[in-house]
Amino acid sequence: MACGRAGPSYNWRMYYKHHVFFCLNDRPNGEASCAHVGAQAGFDHCKSRVKAAKLAGPGGIRVNKAGCLDRCAGGPVAVVYPEGTWYTFVDEHDIDEIVDSHLVGGKPVDRLLLPPDVGR
Amino acid sequence: MACGRAGPSYNWRMYYKHHVFFCLNDRPNGEASCAHVGAQAGFDHCKSRVKAAKLAGPGGIRVNKAGCLDRCAGGPVAVVYPEGTWYTFVDEHDIDEIVDSHLVGGKPVDRLLLPPDVGR
Repeated sequence: MACGRAGPSYNWRMYYKHHVFFCLNDRPNGEASCAHVGAQAGFDHCKSRVKAAKLAGPGGIRVNKAGCLDRCAGGPVAVVYPEGTWYTFVDEHDIDEIVDSHLVGGKPVDRLLLPPDVGR
Repeated sequence: MACGRAGPSYNWRMYYKHHVFFCLNDRPNGEASCAHVGAQAGFDHCKSRVKAAKLAGPGGIRVNKAGCLDRCAGGPVAVVYPEGTWYTFVDEHDIDEIVDSHLVGGKPVDRLLLPPDVGR
């Protein structure tokens, strides 16, 4: 089918509909590090909530631990694929909103988006 | 622009052009586990090769550690986003082919694709 949109050749049958990666990196030397600013709590809460809603698994949602995503200045950060949507979050309410609005409803949470210039 | 292709609303400006996640999970109880079948060596080799080729970073390629991706039966496994292409690999030659063909050339390596029915 002709499509005017530029972009790579995607596989539209995703094993997970949404695959969420939380940076849990812990730097021991005092540098900015997601593990020091609540990343584990956010991950745990997201995983529990997705599981409780029976959304986990193939064809659904996978919530994953990850090493350093290299956008430490915005930590704690998480990224949702295949969309490539990056989030920064503060507390469980933020995670709830990401789950409910984005992962369930398909609508990204604008107020939690990581600005594009945030790197290490 | 109208486009006939069905699918979620993607963000075409990806922070990383290719974001590769290697499962490095180590199960202590003898279950199938990527860490027991060469995952760390594959990750290390991929990361070194991408860095040596000066492909690492925003707008380029990020090679990431991940926890269990829950497709343990095909381990060691890695997934490339935003494409959602899943690979299983054996050695450094496999990793070289994924880097050269897919990450640099944009052509997935068919012989290393993880079959869609492989789960935990």
